[in-house]
Amino acid sequence: MERLEQQFDFIKEIDKEKLIGRQSYLTNAVRKENDAEHAWHMAVMTLLLSEYANEEIDVLKTISMLLIHDIVEIDAGDTYAYDEEGKTTQRQREEQAAERIFGLLPADQAEKFRGLWEEFEACQTAEARFARSMDNIQPIMLNHMTDGQAWQEHGVSIEQINKRNEWTPKGSEVLWNYVQEHFIAPNLEKGRIKSLERESEA
Amino acid sequence: MERLEQQFDFIKEIDKEKLIGRQSYLTNAVRKENDAEHAWHMAVMTLLLSEYANEEIDVLKTISMLLIHDIVEIDAGDTYAYDEEGKTTQRQREEQAAERIFGLLPADQAEKFRGLWEEFEACQTAEARFARSMDNIQPIMLNHMTDGQAWQEHGVSIEQINKRNEWTPKGSEVLWNYVQEHFIAPNLEKGRIKSLERESEA
Repeated sequence: MERLEQQFDFIKEIDKEKLIGRQSYLTNAVRKENDAEHAWHMAVMTLLLSEYANEEIDVLKTISMLLIHDIVEIDAGDTYAYDEEGKTTQRQREEQAAERIFGLLPADQAEKFRGLWEEFEACQTAEARFARSMDNIQPIMLNHMTDGQAWQEHGVSIEQINKRNEWTPKGSEVLWNYVQEHFIAPNLEKGRIKSLERESEA
Repeated sequence: MERLEQQFDFIKEIDKEKLIGRQSYLTNAVRKENDAEHAWHMAVMTLLLSEYANEEIDVLKTISMLLIHDIVEIDAGDTYAYDEEGKTTQRQREEQAAERIFGLLPADQAEKFRGLWEEFEACQTAEARFARSMDNIQPIMLNHMTDGQAWQEHGVSIEQINKRNEWTPKGSEVLWNYVQEHFIAPNLEKGRIKSLERESEA
């Protein structure tokens, strides 16, 4: 039963992911989202939207990646998409976290989960590219649903959003086009997303 | 783009699942869990524990079921496992919810998700049986991790737990045995779970 003991040690440990806060607000902006909720939402999105992936993807593998890719944040914390300072130390903090947390599992499963996490991070496979698109699109959708509250609080610009989303169309061009038109453009127009270009012209 | 519009209508709607509270407390009992967190936790558990299923299971199908089976609670609310009164109207409330919420999706996906939900509820396939085991085991584990707080608050008895878990060994005998020994027995011993039999003898 040592194997099962190790598996439950990990399963108990990851309960803490529910306490890792993100910057996106939920419906009606009652509170911000946490990592576990975010992962669940993206997994369901993948079940429904995989048909729009640029390349054919293995849905189970993509969902597995999305379910576990934020577990490292239990130790490393959430690094906000537009926190340039935090991002300089993010990789190292997350590597250490992966070592400790995935290391709770039996060796074969530790290797499998670590591999899925590395694959997500490297973004070199069709599954990782689609997963990355989900990871970028889901908070944009939430921001749109809450009148851009998180964008406004952080003074986020369209230039930052576009840079952040360089990889999004590599997972799905169809979805990226939809997101630009329906979730980003209306908020740019209403001034909830800044435009540095427009400001420098003014 | 009507299809994608419908898909995003559903994806936006289910954000509300994050606000449906359950009775289980999280690590350190800081607060109670919600449905989205619960679904995420069980999906990861399934990735790790499917090897203990009594019968071979399709992991993607099982995870899909677990990810979506509580969506009906957005309208119907969470019915606590030991709320006998609430359970008398649960089915009808959930049927109506399924109709409305899955009905937001394009017809083919509405049918697929509705089918997964019905399959989970009917508990007649290997995947549904394993999913049911996860749905029962995960809160028992959380209760154990928080010194049986929810059990104590609700005065739950071992007889109620055993009745609730009649189906749990049908998904996985190995896991049910482990759970009884490691998560239930210690709490029964410490009086955090009542024993009606023992009380009637006293």
